[in-house]
Amino acid sequence: MPDQSLSQVRTPDAPAAEPGARASGVSRRALLGTAGATGLVLGAAGGAVGYAAAPAGATPLTALGSGRAMFHGKHQPGITEGLQARGHLVAFDLVAGAGRKEAAALLRRWSTTAERLMAGEPAPHDDTDVARDAGPSSLTVTFGFGHGFFGKTGLEKQRPAALDPLPDFSSDRLDKSRSDGDLWVQIGADDALVAFHALRAIQKDAGSAARVRWQMNGFNRSPGATAHPMTARNLMGQLDGTGNPKPSDADFEKRVFVPASGEPAWMANGSYAVVRRIRMLLDDWEKLSTTAQEQVIGRRKADGAPLSGGAETTPMDLEKADAKGDYLVPLNAHARITRPDRNGGAAMLRRPFSYHDGIDADGTPDAGLLFICWQADPLRGFVPVQRKLDRGDALSPFIRHEASGLFAVPGGAAKGEYVGQRLLEG
Amino acid sequence: MPDQSLSQVRTPDAPAAEPGARASGVSRRALLGTAGATGLVLGAAGGAVGYAAAPAGATPLTALGSGRAMFHGKHQPGITEGLQARGHLVAFDLVAGAGRKEAAALLRRWSTTAERLMAGEPAPHDDTDVARDAGPSSLTVTFGFGHGFFGKTGLEKQRPAALDPLPDFSSDRLDKSRSDGDLWVQIGADDALVAFHALRAIQKDAGSAARVRWQMNGFNRSPGATAHPMTARNLMGQLDGTGNPKPSDADFEKRVFVPASGEPAWMANGSYAVVRRIRMLLDDWEKLSTTAQEQVIGRRKADGAPLSGGAETTPMDLEKADAKGDYLVPLNAHARITRPDRNGGAAMLRRPFSYHDGIDADGTPDAGLLFICWQADPLRGFVPVQRKLDRGDALSPFIRHEASGLFAVPGGAAKGEYVGQRLLEG
Repeated sequence: MPDQSLSQVRTPDAPAAEPGARASGVSRRALLGTAGATGLVLGAAGGAVGYAAAPAGATPLTALGSGRAMFHGKHQPGITEGLQARGHLVAFDLVAGAGRKEAAALLRRWSTTAERLMAGEPAPHDDTDVARDAGPSSLTVTFGFGHGFFGKTGLEKQRPAALDPLPDFSSDRLDKSRSDGDLWVQIGADDALVAFHALRAIQKDAGSAARVRWQMNGFNRSPGATAHPMTARNLMGQLDGTGNPKPSDADFEKRVFVPASGEPAWMANGSYAVVRRIRMLLDDWEKLSTTAQEQVIGRRKADGAPLSGGAETTPMDLEKADAKGDYLVPLNAHARITRPDRNGGAAMLRRPFSYHDGIDADGTPDAGLLFICWQADPLRGFVPVQRKLDRGDALSPFIRHEASGLFAVPGGAAKGEYVGQRLLEG
Repeated sequence: MPDQSLSQVRTPDAPAAEPGARASGVSRRALLGTAGATGLVLGAAGGAVGYAAAPAGATPLTALGSGRAMFHGKHQPGITEGLQARGHLVAFDLVAGAGRKEAAALLRRWSTTAERLMAGEPAPHDDTDVARDAGPSSLTVTFGFGHGFFGKTGLEKQRPAALDPLPDFSSDRLDKSRSDGDLWVQIGADDALVAFHALRAIQKDAGSAARVRWQMNGFNRSPGATAHPMTARNLMGQLDGTGNPKPSDADFEKRVFVPASGEPAWMANGSYAVVRRIRMLLDDWEKLSTTAQEQVIGRRKADGAPLSGGAETTPMDLEKADAKGDYLVPLNAHARITRPDRNGGAAMLRRPFSYHDGIDADGTPDAGLLFICWQADPLRGFVPVQRKLDRGDALSPFIRHEASGLFAVPGGAAKGEYVGQRLLEG
């Protein structure tokens, strides 16, 4: 029975909904105990500095509310944790006159806010109460630097070569006003108000140092809504993420994170995030039969199994053909083109949110994927795969890359440090 | 322990997160049993006509996923159930040439789709698979008719007087392109992909009979994210809904629903929905101190207690004054003005979603409340309260009504019937 009642808690030793697993700051005892679970959870979330105690008669937080990711650590949070139900992406530009000093103060403010909110505590100043009563709900806040940041702060020499602009892809239809940015913040949580609360606090912290350049909202399944053990569906109805590297893979760390001895030194244990707003042309996609959709992707829609047979995790047999000699997985199928072993071993960790910003004047949905992928080196991760897709992906007619960003996400902050300190004070 | 593990299941006999309670199509045995909870849930959700069985090794659905509201009944779903984590509002206009016959066929298609999706089954035609693997997740789909519907279908004589346009309020800043509509559909679910799946199916069902006029997305807390027993917070950080009528109130049915013997006959057991997109001017609001915010509302922000003292549910003492003779609840406080006993007994059931459509070019958030209120008669529910608010609500400087709609929502369909059948075939 405990296992069932805890089926939503994604602890490191339980099957995760997605590549990584999420630390829980709450013990099983706290979740299952009868001694006032709320008090225990708030205690775990910071005690004296937290919100006031919940009202008498309050029901206990469930696993969803009490899920907690850690701010301090080797890596920043929000990279290997399971997908969250709600996400915000926001990019800022430093304002004229703001330089290294102002940026350092901003990153210090942001880190303090992120640490507190991820523990379920109020923001350091002028908390809005929007997250009051709620648990941390697996909130993560992740910070990155864009290409423009380094010139404005006099840190050109510290700019990683990996931040060189991505190549142009022929199928790109990029809106520059919703692309790039000096600073990038990714917020995720399993509760929409907890995520919104964090977004407002981060925006307010920017103060007079930085202004919002663009902001996007996304979502994934709510924990517990699906019985599927591993992989999320996207708005095309496909299982999305089957080929993701797993934390148990021997080379997972190497593919996703810059090594501790890597260059530049301030990026030790960091990662590079490629962010693409990929609109799905759902009216066109949904006119295809399921069989035609499966030919486009190269996998069965119901269970994600490769068209060459087996189950979702069965390796794809790229050579298998039917009686007429046609490959079961077509040559231009999306899943064939993106296979790591056909891309020089390239692999990236995809950790997306779906988005839906309503319906356009012509009745078509403004919906798709906030594609976010993580890798140690974009030139060995996103770029070679996207180059191949750009040349002959059967999925291309049904998607449109509308915005793009590339950000250097430093390693996690140690206690007492702020994110990016080794860059800004190095 | 069973009580704790089921704390998210809002059954009629358990405390609900919001005014009403949500039927569960799944027994406690199904949730807690060890005989393959997934199979039981899918069985409850329709068995043979549902999606294929979940893959081997699937984890059981939790309470969130298996929550199920009933399509058939005295009232339509989506009125008295607890708040859902995700919502879509969409209004349609009948296209030129579509009349009563086309409208009847559309409502029949919509009802079939709603019944199936609410049971966790695929749409009748061309299902997109976006909800595949997920439980019903407390999906509700609710249908209403706007003023313009009746003229286009030759049913003017059946148009209720209660659908007469709302009076103009001096503080309204309404965008007509996002207001009104011949048909209105409210979709709510605890999972964002389940809700999106339903929205796409409903939009596709409209076919050539109706086109989208406007569409809005909203959200509430995820079940289990908060320990608060009763009331949700809005994006201003206030507890919102404290004064809502409760299903246990003797006059609840009378205030919210048209009586079975009511006029017109096709509206028996129906209700009228007033929908307002209320933008919150959060940058201004958040500049106020908590004390100043509490004076605007008339309640404490932390726990919702009236400024006259007590706890959230303590009746407000409107006459109580401080040593200087000033009322503890200011004369223009929002909670004083909206008190039912000061509005001729007016009461409406508010069941809103928050919304957040990103950040405007000037950096301000496009966020607020998709206010939805339900009442037997708008002239005795929304209108008198809004008239008073329009004259002197301290909250007015911090909100802006940007869109408005008024819809006649007929009673629930009996088995074999479709929603609105008594109007369209009467």
